[in-house]
Parts: sequence; structure tokens; C-alpha cells
Amino acid sequence: MPASDSFHWPVPAGERGGSDGRGAFVRDPYQSRQRPYPERRARLDPVVHGRGDRCPLLDREQVGAFESDGFLGLDGVFDPSRVAAWREEAERLRRDPDLAGRAEVITEPGSGVVRSIFRIHDISPVFSELARDPLLLETARFILGGDVYIHQSRLNYKPAFKGREFYWHSDFETSHVEDGMPRMRAVSVSVTLSENSHLNGPLMLIPGSHKTYISCVGRTPDQHYKTSLKQQEYGVPDETSVAEMARAGGVMAPTGRAGSVVIFDCNTMHGSNSNITPFPRTNAFFVYNACGNALVEPYGERDARPEFIASRNFTPLLSAN
Amino acid sequence: MPASDSFHWPVPAGERGGSDGRGAFVRDPYQSRQRPYPERRARLDPVVHGRGDRCPLLDREQVGAFESDGFLGLDGVFDPSRVAAWREEAERLRRDPDLAGRAEVITEPGSGVVRSIFRIHDISPVFSELARDPLLLETARFILGGDVYIHQSRLNYKPAFKGREFYWHSDFETSHVEDGMPRMRAVSVSVTLSENSHLNGPLMLIPGSHKTYISCVGRTPDQHYKTSLKQQEYGVPDETSVAEMARAGGVMAPTGRAGSVVIFDCNTMHGSNSNITPFPRTNAFFVYNACGNALVEPYGERDARPEFIASRNFTPLLSAN
Repeated sequence: MPASDSFHWPVPAGERGGSDGRGAFVRDPYQSRQRPYPERRARLDPVVHGRGDRCPLLDREQVGAFESDGFLGLDGVFDPSRVAAWREEAERLRRDPDLAGRAEVITEPGSGVVRSIFRIHDISPVFSELARDPLLLETARFILGGDVYIHQSRLNYKPAFKGREFYWHSDFETSHVEDGMPRMRAVSVSVTLSENSHLNGPLMLIPGSHKTYISCVGRTPDQHYKTSLKQQEYGVPDETSVAEMARAGGVMAPTGRAGSVVIFDCNTMHGSNSNITPFPRTNAFFVYNACGNALVEPYGERDARPEFIASRNFTPLLSAN
Repeated sequence: MPASDSFHWPVPAGERGGSDGRGAFVRDPYQSRQRPYPERRARLDPVVHGRGDRCPLLDREQVGAFESDGFLGLDGVFDPSRVAAWREEAERLRRDPDLAGRAEVITEPGSGVVRSIFRIHDISPVFSELARDPLLLETARFILGGDVYIHQSRLNYKPAFKGREFYWHSDFETSHVEDGMPRMRAVSVSVTLSENSHLNGPLMLIPGSHKTYISCVGRTPDQHYKTSLKQQEYGVPDETSVAEMARAGGVMAPTGRAGSVVIFDCNTMHGSNSNITPFPRTNAFFVYNACGNALVEPYGERDARPEFIASRNFTPLLSAN
């Protein structure tokens, strides 16, 4: 049984908590979207679970940087010939008539331009292999300290000229509330299929933000607040918290050639600006979650998101070779 | 009489042309928004009119770079204490109750957040002085070869978190069609009042783009085209032209401290991405036009834009000291 099960059982949404191990009830430490004000809470979970030199991709210094910054950009990890094959596969999937209209394929309203394809580790043998590439898989296993599975995978096609911004968010906040991911023990890996410059809407991250959990403002508990509070969108961190984190840590955007890798902790605050440049930004994206951190019921009030966004196949991933 | 008057008289919109000086009729060389397809035409006008070493801000090498790239970024031109005073004035104007509601003040629909204030060289003594600062004014006079006036001035408040993108455009295309600016003999100067990084939606420019005039696709002349052509917004260059220019010249974004200056030719293709960072991007912006290039009737079919956007006070600007 996953360790996380020991502090979770069904209670009213928003009041979900668990045992402290000695029989006392504790609130969900990562509660969110329940209060009319944001709360900042210290992270309770380790960032790096691995010990020693067992990571094939990162040396000790890089592991230390990941631990303190919450992310790491690695330029030119993969050979251009492999990257070319992935780009070709990404193009093939984008045009695949068998995929068109499926829920996994997210298109722009109106134009029908494909923005994302989810579940690529299942849909495509090529990206299944990339997800299980020893460099990536063993790095995820090292950081998360044991068996992992793919919680989410997707291709992101940030198009030239019309690429949209993604506002700041912590993946963990979303996964916790909407998918039922119990603790911070997941890591995201982005493999760039095109050059990432500072100007084509690159992934921006706030160093150190992974150490604090920002609960998002949610529905208000009484009528007074309902009128006085300017309602924010669900799952959006408040500007003051993001500004303070950015003043402390800055805002970074790893850049690099196609075939670069950005690894970031599930709670690292990130987002991206729009892209009006003529240079698209395509990447393959994998979220590895520890098998010991398998999903339970969502911690929010909504139904769990569908399988193609948040997998419930917790079978440990095996290396591609 | 401005020299430009010699090749302009009233003819049907879109067919506006002028004399070639020997009595022959020539079409408007910078016609735009009249055809269902874009046209690329070589620039007919010099980029730098000045000769010799008379420019107080730019050395020969920088003048050469401006001439070939169509822009120049100069970091830390102005003293921090002066910049602080301008920032203070920008804040004062933003909150000035006497300005609120005036046409010069552009607010965001809904929130009422101020995005731009136009005609600051008239409204504010502080920015009137900056517009006439010898460094800027003499540089404009050097580049444009003689007397200049302020065609447009404004403060741009690109806010943190919600800063919107500005799509690619040539200022000249707009000024020609909508304001009646006859030829390419104007220069834009942006003075940064906050730090410009690569990530807070900086001004992006395409080096070399000023050498070609891209006519924008406009209303279609017949019914067949009306249905077959995917209508673009008025005054927006086509993606293919922008992409080819960017592939040839790249996309550049000068960065620098508050008090930096970006000078760019009126026909340089430029734009900016959105800004979700917590760092606002504020700048003061002045368009100097040669007095010999004073506005006539708009070359498009619309009425001329109002005075606060396109001044018709062609009095030569005098230095602040």
C-alpha cells in the first residue's frame, strides 16, 4: 500500500485530512481553493529522495542545484538525430486522422490548430520509448527515490505568431486538488523538440518557489466575502505571493538547442509568456510520479480529471533498454 | 512647403499617387490595405540623413549599425536620479484625477488599469523636457537630417502579470495609411523607466526589416476574394513576410537598466510578447518626424486619427537647453 494512504480517508471536501500516525486528525496540509485568502505553507516533503551518486544524468552539484532551485536546465542532452525523429513523430501525430477528434488532442477553438496531445507515452511507441529512456527514467527514479509511473504526458505545440501564454501555477496544486495526488513527490521533465530562446515564450520558473505551498483562493464561505472579494480563477496563485517569490528568487528561463531537457519539481511555480515570434516552441512533457504517491480521490470538490490527463495506471515504469 | 507635398494630391483612396517630378503620375509607393495579397517593396527613403560626426549620442559604428539593422539599443544612457524623477512623474500622471477619462488616457476595459497615456510631451512639463533633451533631439535631428517635431508621444505601462502582447507591425505602415505620413523619415525613441529583461515582454525587433515595406492585406476588391480569403485584421503584416524577415535577420530584444534607450526606424518591424512576470515594463516613447515629412491626408480610406495620436503641430522642436 502506498505510504500516502496512511494519512487520507474520506471526509468532507476541503476538510480532508488524515492521521498524524499517532491517531490524531490532521488537516490536509496542502488544502487549497477553500478559503477567501491565500495561505503560504512550508513544504513538508523532501525534494530529492535519492542519495549518493546513482543519478545517470546529474552530478552532485546539479542535484544540489535542483534541490535548492526546484529545477534544472540541461542543454543538448539528446543527439540531434534522435530529436529529429521525435519531431517527425510529433508532426505525424499532429496530422494523424485517427487521433483527430479524440479527447487527447487539444485544438484551438475556431482554427482547429493542435495545441497539445496528451497521453503520448501510451499513444505513440516513439514517445513511450522516450518516457522510458534510461537517462530520464533513472533520473526520475533517483529524485523520487524508487519506482515511478507516468502521471501525465503530452506534446505541447506552442505555435509561432499565436502561441498563448500560460499563467503561473504549481503543477502539484492542480494535481492535488483535481487529481488526488497526495504529496509532493513528482517531477516534470520537458524535452525540447525545437530551440528554446528567451523570446519564443519559453518555460519560466521561479527558483526556490518549490519550498513553499501557495494555496489558491477559492470560493468564499460567506456572503460578505462573496461581494467584497474580486473572484480569481480557480487554481490561480495570488499576485502578491508570486511577486514575493520572484523578488526573492528571480525568474529564470532555461534556453537551449532542440534536445535540451528541463527538469522541475512538481511544486515549482512556472508559466510562460505568449509567442508572437515566427519560431514555434514544441516540447514533449512527462510527469513522473512516485508509485508510493499514487493518486487517491481529488482533494477538491470536483470529479477527478480524466485518465488521459491524470493516469491511474500505477504500474512501475520499466526502462526502454 | 514640405518637400513631401510635391508628390501628393487628392485622388481616389488606394490609387493615391503623385508626380514623378517630370509630370508623370506614379502610384503611392507605400500603398497598403488595398489588395487581397501582401506586397513587399524596397524602401525608397534613406535611413540616416545625417553625415559626418554630428550625432551626440551615436558614434560612427553605432550609426552604421542603426543604418543596417534599423534599430539600436543603448544601455544606461540616463542617470538613475533623472530616471527616478521620470518614473515618479509617470506615477503621478497615472493617478492624476484631471487626466482620468480624457481621450489621451487608455485604460483596460473592465479594470480601468491605465495602459498608456498619449501626448505626454504636451501634457507634462517633465516629459516635454525629456522629448527636447539634447541627446535625444539632436540624435533625431541627425538621423532625419534637419528639423523635427513630435509626431506621437506616450507612456506605456506594460503591467506585471497582465501585460498584453503587441503584434508585429511597422509604425510607418500605420502612420502612412491612417495619419498621412508621406515617406519613411521618422524615428522612434523608447526610454525605459524600468528594467527591460528578456522575460517581461520586451520590445522585439527584426534586424534589417526596415529595408522592405510590407503592404498589409486589406479589403478585397471582388466577391470571389471576399469568400476565399481568410480576412486578416487591418494593418497586420502577413505571417510569411514576417517569418522570412526573421529567418534572415533574427529577432532581437535589447535589454538594459532603467534609463536605457532603444532607437528604431519608423519602418522596423517590431512587437512584444505578453508579460506574466511580476515585473512591469514602463517606458516613455517619442516618435520624431522630419518637419519635411509633415502629415498630409491619410493614404487609407479612414478619417485621420486624432491629434493626440498623430500631431499636426509641425513646429520644429527646440532643445531643452
